[in-house]
Amino acid sequence: MKVLVTGVDGYSGWPLALHLLARGHEVVGLDNFVTRKRVKEVGSWSATPIPSFPNRQKAVREVLGKELGFYRGDLGDYEFVHQLLAREKPDAVVHLAEQRSAPYSMIDVHHAVATQVENLTGTLHLLYAMRDTCPKSHLVKMGTMGEYGTPNTDIPEGFFEMEYRGRKDIVPFPRQAGSWYHWSKVFDSGDVMFASKIWGLAATDVMQGVIYGIRTPEITDHRLLTRFDFDETWGTALNRFIAQAVLGLPITPYGKGEQRRGFIALEDSMQSLRLAVENPAAPGEYRVFNQFDAAYSVNELAETTARVAKEFGLSPVIEHPPDPRVEAEQHYYNPVHERLPALGYQRTRHLEDVVREIFHDLVHFRRRLEAKRHVVMPAVQWRSVDSRPAILARSPPSVPPSSAGPSAPTSEGPPA
Amino acid sequence: MKVLVTGVDGYSGWPLALHLLARGHEVVGLDNFVTRKRVKEVGSWSATPIPSFPNRQKAVREVLGKELGFYRGDLGDYEFVHQLLAREKPDAVVHLAEQRSAPYSMIDVHHAVATQVENLTGTLHLLYAMRDTCPKSHLVKMGTMGEYGTPNTDIPEGFFEMEYRGRKDIVPFPRQAGSWYHWSKVFDSGDVMFASKIWGLAATDVMQGVIYGIRTPEITDHRLLTRFDFDETWGTALNRFIAQAVLGLPITPYGKGEQRRGFIALEDSMQSLRLAVENPAAPGEYRVFNQFDAAYSVNELAETTARVAKEFGLSPVIEHPPDPRVEAEQHYYNPVHERLPALGYQRTRHLEDVVREIFHDLVHFRRRLEAKRHVVMPAVQWRSVDSRPAILARSPPSVPPSSAGPSAPTSEGPPA
Repeated sequence: MKVLVTGVDGYSGWPLALHLLARGHEVVGLDNFVTRKRVKEVGSWSATPIPSFPNRQKAVREVLGKELGFYRGDLGDYEFVHQLLAREKPDAVVHLAEQRSAPYSMIDVHHAVATQVENLTGTLHLLYAMRDTCPKSHLVKMGTMGEYGTPNTDIPEGFFEMEYRGRKDIVPFPRQAGSWYHWSKVFDSGDVMFASKIWGLAATDVMQGVIYGIRTPEITDHRLLTRFDFDETWGTALNRFIAQAVLGLPITPYGKGEQRRGFIALEDSMQSLRLAVENPAAPGEYRVFNQFDAAYSVNELAETTARVAKEFGLSPVIEHPPDPRVEAEQHYYNPVHERLPALGYQRTRHLEDVVREIFHDLVHFRRRLEAKRHVVMPAVQWRSVDSRPAILARSPPSVPPSSAGPSAPTSEGPPA
Repeated sequence: MKVLVTGVDGYSGWPLALHLLARGHEVVGLDNFVTRKRVKEVGSWSATPIPSFPNRQKAVREVLGKELGFYRGDLGDYEFVHQLLAREKPDAVVHLAEQRSAPYSMIDVHHAVATQVENLTGTLHLLYAMRDTCPKSHLVKMGTMGEYGTPNTDIPEGFFEMEYRGRKDIVPFPRQAGSWYHWSKVFDSGDVMFASKIWGLAATDVMQGVIYGIRTPEITDHRLLTRFDFDETWGTALNRFIAQAVLGLPITPYGKGEQRRGFIALEDSMQSLRLAVENPAAPGEYRVFNQFDAAYSVNELAETTARVAKEFGLSPVIEHPPDPRVEAEQHYYNPVHERLPALGYQRTRHLEDVVREIFHDLVHFRRRLEAKRHVVMPAVQWRSVDSRPAILARSPPSVPPSSAGPSAPTSEGPPA
């Protein structure tokens, strides 16, 4: 199949392209490199050095013997999106090109607006361009388990039978997101569901759990590594805990640390997305996958990190700063995940093994962590206006370049 | 109380300002006049002539003996919004300044994006500016009953107790909107609910039924009339039916005409908004009002129009063109509306009486209808790409002026 991967330069877009190529699919990527720019904006970088995109393509050619197609451009530019899809007519579009950081969206009003406007606009542009140029193509849209929030019930995959005052209907499960970013994904889900309904588009909406890990079987060369972000804005809690342990800083789960979320290893997330691509939704079908393996509390992440850190001769300490987010610290959490196993999904990786693998990799990039030690500890407050990091409070959000062009940014820096 | 009305030049903003002034409140209005511009864009105008804003203010002064404060500006300009709220510090903000037409949002990708981006951005800007300048102020946000769609159950006021796999929780009622515009209102509701949760803002989210009528008790002079839009994009179905009858055109309910929606008279909608303002939500409370009196089918609107038209010596014919929307033509519809009556709301107007009043008013403006006879019949198709009105397919959406300034547009034309 021919697959367009939007956001191919990103954390999950890159290994997805490698995985699909290795499985014999044709892959065309799209990116505007805004994540590289925004990570710089907060004074950080990926612990794993990320080559320039032409060098990434060269490595794919040399290591995998495959050609990765690429367009530099922005989903905010409708003419560009339309022309790209009209030329490529992919069988599937995996849409990963969105602002993906909840803390970034919470910095101030401008970052809130940029997040919601950018994500909604890109999705609407893709939907219309697909309708007009490749209406039989299948959209696989990256959402988040965070769309559901933490209701006091199990969480079905997208829809459920509700009953109210004696009557029943099958309806979308209520969404209660916890950041402007998470709400932007809820909004995308509404738009994709509606486009599917009125135009007959085939769509899979992926409620993605938090992904962990930086390796997949295709990543056999350091030039093929994906990002490892560890700053407060772009790193996941687990990534930050690992960076904290490596740097000899306290590991800092927020509050009581009993907030639970769904998780999945990078390799298994790639397996899931491939299964979605290879088993497309039917025309007019809008289906929702809860894409995760297991739920962990923040404490479990911290404790797993500490346990593995000791194997590496480190002496981690766990501290509990107040939770800057507005979220339930103790809550029920039991989402359903049955649709991917029904397509043949099998879990292959477990948390502690992957954490061990990350520590093993980071040994090589310790100096890149050391150089950015100041960005690891938490600072953004979600409740009030006054405690934003000064570096962010005064800077407007990055505007992605809107024109497509042949140039690509340089590497994020030399390997340590 | 001091009330800021955003969208004060619009169909409901204008009579709300008059009603609040008459009840002794201080009113400051805000508008960017984009509705005037967009109605021109589709080649139409309001059947009731709308004076320039300075002349509207003058009429308020002369007829009501009141001063209506006014800022020309755009909610898309955050600095402007922040400065305005910091200066005025209103007790309540009634937010009506959004793109309000479902058909406009369905014209093409650019109108879809403009609708969602504009509505979301304005709401986020207001929320942040309120947090930073008047956090105890009460936001009354105009949503729509269309957020809920037409589920096969009753529709509660915003929240309900759900049960899933043996556990229960109080959650937002699922939203299933039927146009990009209606989805934009769903998205706003998510953002307002979240802002209320994290910042403790007091908010009332109004699920507004379709409003009918052009008079309220305060409109005692033709210079105080509000808009009567009748073109396919900006007029409601009822308004178009009445215009069709006056012009001797067939009355055109779509499809079987059994689609049911909630309705409320303009005067009673103003009563409802005033009750929301005078009985504010508590700090941190996000409450939802279903604001309508009765549900009517499109056929009932057509038949009421035809019945009253005959009283005026007209000979109306009802025709049923295919439904261009993607919606259930026969469905259950029984939303709950209990919260406003609990605040003292009492219905004062009934459909047929108001339709009669509209016919009576339109006699004076028949020539303004005649001049725009070509915009009354339906043309926008929601399913496919090819049947958009040519006038719209090639024109980008109007960009509202983003700077605040003292000038105001001229009248939409002399009275007929």
